[in-house]
Amino acid sequence: MLELALMDPEAFDVKEARAVFEDIGISVSGSLGLTPSTDVSSEDELIVAKGEAVLRKAVQLVAELGGTDLCGELYSALAKYPSASTEKGRGNAVAALRRLADYADGFGVSLSLEILNRYETNLVNTAEQGLKFLDDVGRPNVKLHLDTYHMNIEESSMAGAVLATGDRLGYVHVGESNRGYLGSGNIDFASFLRALMTIGYAGPIVFESFSTAVVGPNLSNVLGVWRNLWEESDDLASHAYSYITTAIRSAEQATRKWV
Amino acid sequence: MLELALMDPEAFDVKEARAVFEDIGISVSGSLGLTPSTDVSSEDELIVAKGEAVLRKAVQLVAELGGTDLCGELYSALAKYPSASTEKGRGNAVAALRRLADYADGFGVSLSLEILNRYETNLVNTAEQGLKFLDDVGRPNVKLHLDTYHMNIEESSMAGAVLATGDRLGYVHVGESNRGYLGSGNIDFASFLRALMTIGYAGPIVFESFSTAVVGPNLSNVLGVWRNLWEESDDLASHAYSYITTAIRSAEQATRKWV
Repeated sequence: MLELALMDPEAFDVKEARAVFEDIGISVSGSLGLTPSTDVSSEDELIVAKGEAVLRKAVQLVAELGGTDLCGELYSALAKYPSASTEKGRGNAVAALRRLADYADGFGVSLSLEILNRYETNLVNTAEQGLKFLDDVGRPNVKLHLDTYHMNIEESSMAGAVLATGDRLGYVHVGESNRGYLGSGNIDFASFLRALMTIGYAGPIVFESFSTAVVGPNLSNVLGVWRNLWEESDDLASHAYSYITTAIRSAEQATRKWV
Repeated sequence: MLELALMDPEAFDVKEARAVFEDIGISVSGSLGLTPSTDVSSEDELIVAKGEAVLRKAVQLVAELGGTDLCGELYSALAKYPSASTEKGRGNAVAALRRLADYADGFGVSLSLEILNRYETNLVNTAEQGLKFLDDVGRPNVKLHLDTYHMNIEESSMAGAVLATGDRLGYVHVGESNRGYLGSGNIDFASFLRALMTIGYAGPIVFESFSTAVVGPNLSNVLGVWRNLWEESDDLASHAYSYITTAIRSAEQATRKWV
């Protein structure tokens, strides 16, 4: 599966893209992070309305590309917030996600809400907070999206967080603690993947990494990419594929039932 | 040792504080993070000058309190920067630190530059970058300050980073990956402490944690403290003391030479 960042939905030709993906036989998902001017957790109804328009457009795009998954920071802005979230803002985000879920349902699209570290949202930093947020949204096509890079900062137990989400986990990012090559940092992927196997997770597992070599200056600056941990994206990607498919097979064996 | 945050040097009575610390027999160090308006890595000479004044005041305070260590983010602002650092800004920081080092030397004070994660500085995120920065400053009373919380995000190998710093490591913060109770997150303190023993580190090891229960709203917002992982600071501190002294003894045994 290839995940397309839909930060700029007008940036590509959807029909041409779909034809290419079908030609090479790869499935597609969409992701995005809202911005301070499209933040559905804002207290400002105009900003919330702008955010909902962006999200509906992204749902349409995913469906037009033949995908069924929209993930990422759909409930908040990808930004270091200057202060804590408010009840009113959180309520706005919950209401917006309910409306978006019903809209997405008409397109056969599921939403997975990415849990991010404290510097990239002030609203949902842990799986526990995410499950509470899902309870409040109360729509079956809204699930959680876990990312190992963020979990390494916020979760007390990465495996414990996976086990807690159970069948409400809809999407997974594997990223290293330093956002570079898998296995070049501090994350214990073995115990994370064993937990995924234990809950019978069968959804997407997508590798994510950032370098100014391929990421635009705006997103690089938001994410704080001040140094590059790789230059060649082909080598990075093929290594990630080998690393994670091998680690998944190990985890499958580790959690295999023998009796 | 008690580390005093000198973000607001006018906030306490130095003579009274020193008398209290001497009475209970505890040594003192000082720490601070510059702000965007006192950032010595700014390209604006007026801002750099303001930063140097703050730093000199902090050096004086540490000396007046009977301490010998000033640590923290002395080279940059404690903030999520909107863009990457510049050569000119870095040059300003190096020059400011040289002048400050010479000033601090007159007070018998050493400076330890804290390496922080990408969301809290754009200038020095790893020990490797820190050593290069020290080379450029070139003053013997300027060393590095490592913090396990930040290292968990940025370093490929926490133990490797310690080994690389060697005798240029001047100060250590132990903090958990989630900034709560030690041992309640993802950090491998055993291998970190073994590396400290291996290099013969004999400087301060100070526990750091944050909660809005005791940290002011400004600093809490800068640090993204959106949820509290503890309420009772006495219990947190006594647990941290037990945890780290026990772990240090284990690391001493692990690295003991038998022949």
